[in-house]
Amino acid sequence: MRAAASDTRVVNLAGGLPSDAQFPRQALAAAFVRVVSHDGGRALQYGWAEGAERLRGFVAKRLRARGAAVDADDVIVTAGAQQGIAIALELTTRTGRRDRVGVGDESYPAALDLMRARGLAPVAPLTGVRVRYVMPAIDNPRGRAMADAVRRTLIATRPAIIEDDAYADLAFDGPAPRPLLADAPDRVLHVGTLSKTLCPGLRIGWLVVPRPLRSRALRLKQSADLQASSLGQAVAETYLLGEGRTPPVDFDARLVRLRRFYRRRAAMLGRALRAALPGWRFTPPAGGFAFWVEAPADAPRVDELAWLRAALEAGVMFDPGSSFRPDGAAGSAAARLCFSSAPVEAFAVGVRRFARAWRRCVTRGDA
Amino acid sequence: MRAAASDTRVVNLAGGLPSDAQFPRQALAAAFVRVVSHDGGRALQYGWAEGAERLRGFVAKRLRARGAAVDADDVIVTAGAQQGIAIALELTTRTGRRDRVGVGDESYPAALDLMRARGLAPVAPLTGVRVRYVMPAIDNPRGRAMADAVRRTLIATRPAIIEDDAYADLAFDGPAPRPLLADAPDRVLHVGTLSKTLCPGLRIGWLVVPRPLRSRALRLKQSADLQASSLGQAVAETYLLGEGRTPPVDFDARLVRLRRFYRRRAAMLGRALRAALPGWRFTPPAGGFAFWVEAPADAPRVDELAWLRAALEAGVMFDPGSSFRPDGAAGSAAARLCFSSAPVEAFAVGVRRFARAWRRCVTRGDA
Repeated sequence: MRAAASDTRVVNLAGGLPSDAQFPRQALAAAFVRVVSHDGGRALQYGWAEGAERLRGFVAKRLRARGAAVDADDVIVTAGAQQGIAIALELTTRTGRRDRVGVGDESYPAALDLMRARGLAPVAPLTGVRVRYVMPAIDNPRGRAMADAVRRTLIATRPAIIEDDAYADLAFDGPAPRPLLADAPDRVLHVGTLSKTLCPGLRIGWLVVPRPLRSRALRLKQSADLQASSLGQAVAETYLLGEGRTPPVDFDARLVRLRRFYRRRAAMLGRALRAALPGWRFTPPAGGFAFWVEAPADAPRVDELAWLRAALEAGVMFDPGSSFRPDGAAGSAAARLCFSSAPVEAFAVGVRRFARAWRRCVTRGDA
Repeated sequence: MRAAASDTRVVNLAGGLPSDAQFPRQALAAAFVRVVSHDGGRALQYGWAEGAERLRGFVAKRLRARGAAVDADDVIVTAGAQQGIAIALELTTRTGRRDRVGVGDESYPAALDLMRARGLAPVAPLTGVRVRYVMPAIDNPRGRAMADAVRRTLIATRPAIIEDDAYADLAFDGPAPRPLLADAPDRVLHVGTLSKTLCPGLRIGWLVVPRPLRSRALRLKQSADLQASSLGQAVAETYLLGEGRTPPVDFDARLVRLRRFYRRRAAMLGRALRAALPGWRFTPPAGGFAFWVEAPADAPRVDELAWLRAALEAGVMFDPGSSFRPDGAAGSAAARLCFSSAPVEAFAVGVRRFARAWRRCVTRGDA
């Protein structure tokens, strides 16, 4: 898989990476030079565990605009969304006790891995569990918003909710929706990130927890790695908020461009899928980076590892369905196919290779 | 404490920060511009969990030069030494089970906090414990090398050893000594960092574990935050190893300069201590950033919080002794006083204020 990831002949529809082309390189470089030359202490020295104040203010202001009563002091800057999820799980579950975490039928693989690594049991139901982990705005892998009925049930029932908001700003139809945090601030642990909308390499995410949990959350953050990268925070802060002669970026205008960019890519991959995968089941995503595709209901099962291997031989990479399932089972053939970072001109050939690899497994009877 | 930390009238002898003046700002800015302009994908995009290959090679090469059989594949890049310690503890202890961790009479406060946050019990003895956490090259807070006899006992006894090498390159007398890792690679989990020798803001550390633990360590790293900052790694890599027209820094020459810089500061703070604190017990450090000072053996006890408060009123900050002790007890009056980052011209006045605050507590009977 790794060798294939750097092989330019392989069409990489895996990984859920944002498009390199959308990283504002020059603006980030300017922000870096600015902070290092004018305030190197801040960017290169240790900082406080909760993170840089103006960055926390930026996050809080955006959440307030979406209806959540959050101020800068409620925000803890984390090393990406992943660390936010890890701390939120540590706050709400007992490590090694097989606590059940409700995640739905499919969920984000790195969150599932984290749960398993911590001795927790991810399960599909969102009731009868210790805590729920969901992506209400735009989920992964389907790229869909949570149904209103599910949302109402979640808000009305007691277990805590870890709300992963990673793709919320990339709902194709416009601004990020009202977060669950706005409706149940006493039970929602809200996780966000700049990885999808700015770039992942800065490792900047955030966590907002109910106030009674805040000091414990901060202690866990400090124990984990003292603080998020001062450098990443200073660069992000200067880019987002400006400083001295560095004007702030218009982040909302950036988001409008990104939505248009990814929406167009989604439409193109959708056309390729319809052409190459007749009978396959998928719903066009409402945002995010990927399609979730499932083989026809009456299709024979295939061995997932053999399918992956056949795909690599054919020259395409995809994310296998089992990695998104709480029980880790291959189940019916399914895959996540990302439109976010592969060259658009490779979509059609990539999907044809994907289809061919699957048919080869079906024909060979690799079940 | 926080307000005082940004009050320039307060002499800050706390915190263990490296000197801002020693950050190679321009060279780091040049490295950043280079990586973002020429290879922005690598610096801003997601990377692999184990970290950047050339950076891991750099770390391995330096450890090999000190006698340890390490190659790049043995190194996992972490978010500073703290995350390395956290993963090492997770690999060797059972969370929440009150496992005893041997740390010596005094140890690094953030490691002690981490142990407590994970439901472990830091204790002074290095025998009869589940794992030991030590800083053999230069310890914190004393700035001393481990005695040979202790070193031999550690190597000869069974429990695993977490070797925190953070200050090893800043032993005043010269190159970092042979690490425990070289003598017991099957039982040593070795943790290092660029925070003291380059800058903390990059959040670049590393972890080397015995090979049977490696895949679990990598999984824990990935679960924790996916990966160390791509940006921090790319900047560090380009600075340390060069790239294109960017020549590498002579890191050993940098270390020689840093040792001279901190050694001179240690001597100056030592003079101030001898002048202002007659009867106090301290040994000149052999490296690192600080002195560990203890009140005269026959001195009355003081209330540590009252002492800290009196010190802030007098205009000086210090790290209180209790934070370094595994049992967290104030015990006899002791403090860590750092010479690493305060202005040298403030050393004498800072130490006089420290002494005055203590005498005030003794006189008032704040016991």
